[in-house]
Amino acid sequence: MDDIDKLGLSTAIAKARKSYQEGGIPIGAALVYHGSSTDPKDAVVLGCAHNSRIQKSSATLHGEIAALEDAGRLKAQVYRGSTMYTTLSPCLMCTGAILLYKIPRVVIGENESWVGGEELLKSQGVEVIVVDNAECKTLMKKFIVEKPEEWNEDIGEIQ
Amino acid sequence: MDDIDKLGLSTAIAKARKSYQEGGIPIGAALVYHGSSTDPKDAVVLGCAHNSRIQKSSATLHGEIAALEDAGRLKAQVYRGSTMYTTLSPCLMCTGAILLYKIPRVVIGENESWVGGEELLKSQGVEVIVVDNAECKTLMKKFIVEKPEEWNEDIGEIQ
Ligand SMILES: [Ca+2]
Ligand SMILES: [Ca+2]
Ligand SMILES: [Zn+2]
Ligand SMILES: [Zn+2]
Repeated sequence: MDDIDKLGLSTAIAKARKSYQEGGIPIGAALVYHGSSTDPKDAVVLGCAHNSRIQKSSATLHGEIAALEDAGRLKAQVYRGSTMYTTLSPCLMCTGAILLYKIPRVVIGENESWVGGEELLKSQGVEVIVVDNAECKTLMKKFIVEKPEEWNEDIGEIQ
Repeated sequence: MDDIDKLGLSTAIAKARKSYQEGGIPIGAALVYHGSSTDPKDAVVLGCAHNSRIQKSSATLHGEIAALEDAGRLKAQVYRGSTMYTTLSPCLMCTGAILLYKIPRVVIGENESWVGGEELLKSQGVEVIVVDNAECKTLMKKFIVEKPEEWNEDIGEIQ
């Protein structure tokens, strides 16, 4: 994790925390453009958001999709100089979105609560970094215990 | 194609046609629940929509994502008794959404203009049917010639 990564992940965590406080699923994400720089002064948070299944009754606004949506329309080149930060291992939908836009790098807060499409990302040449962040884990573990039905709905699992 | 498939695909095509008339990307989709029935009287169009990149300045509302969003929050079982209809071969994001929700069947209007994640769907046991529909092809070919920049943006391609 360089200083841009600290900025990106803390932005994603702040969104996850806000979602939890609203009664929503505590997963946040941020899309950060940095090009070839490692200086946080050159970083631009293009979009950041949280899962909105509960808040917006949405089936598709996972953290990463919501961050891409928040970033709006971008040319292909912009995605290719960006990193996606997400507090939890991305599901297959969000994995596919990262692959669609050829985002070359994904920083994941944790994958202890749940593992998504990390292997598919790596198989397509995406750099995947798992941070094992304590707050990401605490938020998810609390939510899964408190609202198991909503969590299973979010990952398409029958219970 | 059974009668439910005709209903589903014609719903998706009607959305694609509407999007083209609005100046948008002419890709439509419909999520149809049918359970184990093949009688159109038992079919329920849960959601239907078109690509809204241009209309809503959206980076994520592809036809299939927009149809899932239109359908709203559903339990896992509902997706597993449904078919996704889409006028064009689904990109990796939409492929991933189909896999997330374990939608067992996808009917595709055409894959001559562009091919997405069909092989990934099949490798995960999803039934994929390509119809080679003339109107789907005509709409896409016209759009790609008229607005190549918007089309490349939608599939994450540099031009
Ligand atoms: Ca914003
Ligand atoms: Ca509707
Ligand atoms: Zn996701
Ligand atoms: Zn798509």
